[in-house]
Amino acid sequence: MGNKIITVSRQFGSGGRTIGRLAAEKLGIPCYDQELIEKIAKESGLAEEYVEERGEHMPSSNWIANALAVRTVAGMINEDQLWATQCKVILNLAEQGPCVIVGRCADHILKDKFELLRVFVHAPLEKRAERIVSVYGEKEVSIQKRINDKDKRRKAYYQLYTDSEWGAADNYDISVNSASIGIEKCADLLVELYKG
Amino acid sequence: MGNKIITVSRQFGSGGRTIGRLAAEKLGIPCYDQELIEKIAKESGLAEEYVEERGEHMPSSNWIANALAVRTVAGMINEDQLWATQCKVILNLAEQGPCVIVGRCADHILKDKFELLRVFVHAPLEKRAERIVSVYGEKEVSIQKRINDKDKRRKAYYQLYTDSEWGAADNYDISVNSASIGIEKCADLLVELYKG
Repeated sequence: MGNKIITVSRQFGSGGRTIGRLAAEKLGIPCYDQELIEKIAKESGLAEEYVEERGEHMPSSNWIANALAVRTVAGMINEDQLWATQCKVILNLAEQGPCVIVGRCADHILKDKFELLRVFVHAPLEKRAERIVSVYGEKEVSIQKRINDKDKRRKAYYQLYTDSEWGAADNYDISVNSASIGIEKCADLLVELYKG
Repeated sequence: MGNKIITVSRQFGSGGRTIGRLAAEKLGIPCYDQELIEKIAKESGLAEEYVEERGEHMPSSNWIANALAVRTVAGMINEDQLWATQCKVILNLAEQGPCVIVGRCADHILKDKFELLRVFVHAPLEKRAERIVSVYGEKEVSIQKRINDKDKRRKAYYQLYTDSEWGAADNYDISVNSASIGIEKCADLLVELYKG
């Protein structure tokens, strides 16, 4: 077994990214999130926006309708290439030392190769909507619909590439409700468990 | 909101009952598990074995085949009566003071009426099989099959009576893998979160 890694899967708006960052800070180890997207984009030659959206989400149904009409071999190559690059970059980072990795199926990619603390962060829909409005300043009226859509696509992507169920408690070492437990306390729990 | 209650849902063989008991001991509050079955049996007039099995599990498929052949009105009344008595006994216990309640859909029964720490305890199948063999001395060769069957029936029962998904992380405040975190450490986490 290699380095000890925390992987954070999270519902959209649950604060999972913040929890991952806080835990990493407290542990004095790096947290890869946006940096991961940049690395994957650089390595694959794909645009950052494409990597961010398509390395973790199935396309939206509108997108599917369009894609079916204009589906190209290039499109398929992009998706496979993105997955392969994502795996490579995540494995490389994990080999460099202990770290926190947010999203991007890292729990699955690193399974059986590293000692993992696999975390899932969730919160009730209305609390996530509140958080998105207050933290990101979004004002969208249909924010709950957007959250649901984003989670559905994350779940579908995870299922497709890992063949296991996103958000089923038994895929993780610990799952936390960030709304009832609190962001800071969730990070403290991860630190405590990581230190063992 | 009434008393603060810990509800423990658990996969068969995951040690959830032990974690609930340990946490209750550390907190100095009662833990209801077997006592719950005795109370429900006494109050409903149904046999303890029936309460234990049918107050948390859907019948096995063999049982269903038999039941379909000899299905009686009395059978239906028993099941409804069991659920009603279970709700009543659990609500009464929760009203008496802070406590830990293991299984029996208590998280759903007490929802919105009490301040809850809703816990789900799970562990990989092979670890649960090992635990059942070592703790309960069971020697059954097909123990993994029996565990799967029991969990499937718990899940189906929960779904039927609560209309939500047993084992989906977002139904709980915290879900823990007792095999990777350890039984004692899981109990400590609950104590820490309960104390807030």
